[in-house]
Amino acid sequence: MNVEVCFSPALYPYYADEHEADTVVVVVDIFRATTTICKALLNGAAAILPVASVEEAKEYKSKGYLVGAERKVQRCEFADFGNSPATYVPEKVAGREIVFTTTNGTQAINIAANCGRLIIGSFSNISAVADYCNRLQKRVLVLCSGWHNHFNMEDTLFAGALACQLREKGFEVVSDAANVACDMWMQAKADPKAYLSRSEHVKRLAGNGLEGDIDYCLTADTLTLVPVFDKETRKVM
Amino acid sequence: MNVEVCFSPALYPYYADEHEADTVVVVVDIFRATTTICKALLNGAAAILPVASVEEAKEYKSKGYLVGAERKVQRCEFADFGNSPATYVPEKVAGREIVFTTTNGTQAINIAANCGRLIIGSFSNISAVADYCNRLQKRVLVLCSGWHNHFNMEDTLFAGALACQLREKGFEVVSDAANVACDMWMQAKADPKAYLSRSEHVKRLAGNGLEGDIDYCLTADTLTLVPVFDKETRKVM
Repeated sequence: MNVEVCFSPALYPYYADEHEADTVVVVVDIFRATTTICKALLNGAAAILPVASVEEAKEYKSKGYLVGAERKVQRCEFADFGNSPATYVPEKVAGREIVFTTTNGTQAINIAANCGRLIIGSFSNISAVADYCNRLQKRVLVLCSGWHNHFNMEDTLFAGALACQLREKGFEVVSDAANVACDMWMQAKADPKAYLSRSEHVKRLAGNGLEGDIDYCLTADTLTLVPVFDKETRKVM
Repeated sequence: MNVEVCFSPALYPYYADEHEADTVVVVVDIFRATTTICKALLNGAAAILPVASVEEAKEYKSKGYLVGAERKVQRCEFADFGNSPATYVPEKVAGREIVFTTTNGTQAINIAANCGRLIIGSFSNISAVADYCNRLQKRVLVLCSGWHNHFNMEDTLFAGALACQLREKGFEVVSDAANVACDMWMQAKADPKAYLSRSEHVKRLAGNGLEGDIDYCLTADTLTLVPVFDKETRKVM
């Protein structure tokens, strides 16, 4: 079994190709969408409904849904939540379905919606994701959400960390992209926060007063659930 | 001034954006198209005409042009040359215009044809390219040709080497992609061939009996010319 890494949603069509129906796609947006999805489900949300556009999210809001919506790092005014995992507390989310749209992460989910199995990865649940992939024994493609289709460090770092875990379980790391992601993780793993201090998105979060989210987003294995996207209902749960 | 790196022609639209007309794009396809272009011009070719499709190349051939054409690593049967720099010898190329199509490199040239200035980079002319960029004092975008729009190590390694040279000349390396490319170069520079031994394209070249090209393609500064793409004539010279 092979683990592959795709650095941007815009490259997904070239990586999905003829194997798409037999591939487990792990969508990752470390800062912060996929970390937030994991946190909301951990805190009892019934499901996350990822939508690509702010307009769709507004429509759901008018129908009474709870809505998380973020653009340019900040919460959209009409929404109940932005993209900070810390705000999805049990008192607000337990038992509720939450419509969710973010700058990059929910776009990535939508672009890969037709793959064999789409799951949500973050450092919070990385070991659970590795175990899940190992049980399925299918090709794994880590899809980095990036930033407006640009490469980013933090998603690639997660991809490398996951690829390294899977390699230890017998998966093969063959491609240039997967090998470079693993190299990055080997370089960074002693102190991922220090490694990422020069990254574009860490600067962007700090510039918006959101440093508080960084530590949580980089903490491994705070939960063991693996959110799965259901093609029929288009819900993550 | 900023130096940026784009990992795939498919990502070029996201990196070119509003700055395109004021950007120097350095197209690189280490194995082997841009190395071959440099070699052919060094050996006296009057110009290289990059074309995207085999069909166009065939049309030129029927008009009497010399043609270099490669697909799937091998020379196309109808062509005078494939993509081995060693075959573009002075006896054959001096004074001639050569139509050229390859799997990845000539596609990258065509996709960036409307930028402010498009130049051709390879390890063969890396220091000359750095000096050229430094004289222009404009934003530099290194466009990696990749492999069928996938990320590859060797083009990114060149991007990192060039970015490191430009940083020493006062350029800024800000983006995640450019920083990771620089990290790769720092890791690889003591022995780039050993670093790339696990890369997909080195295996592909070896599998086609083309190991001989690898050393030349990784040798720095064997020439000082900087091939420039002319928008009007669409020739590289």
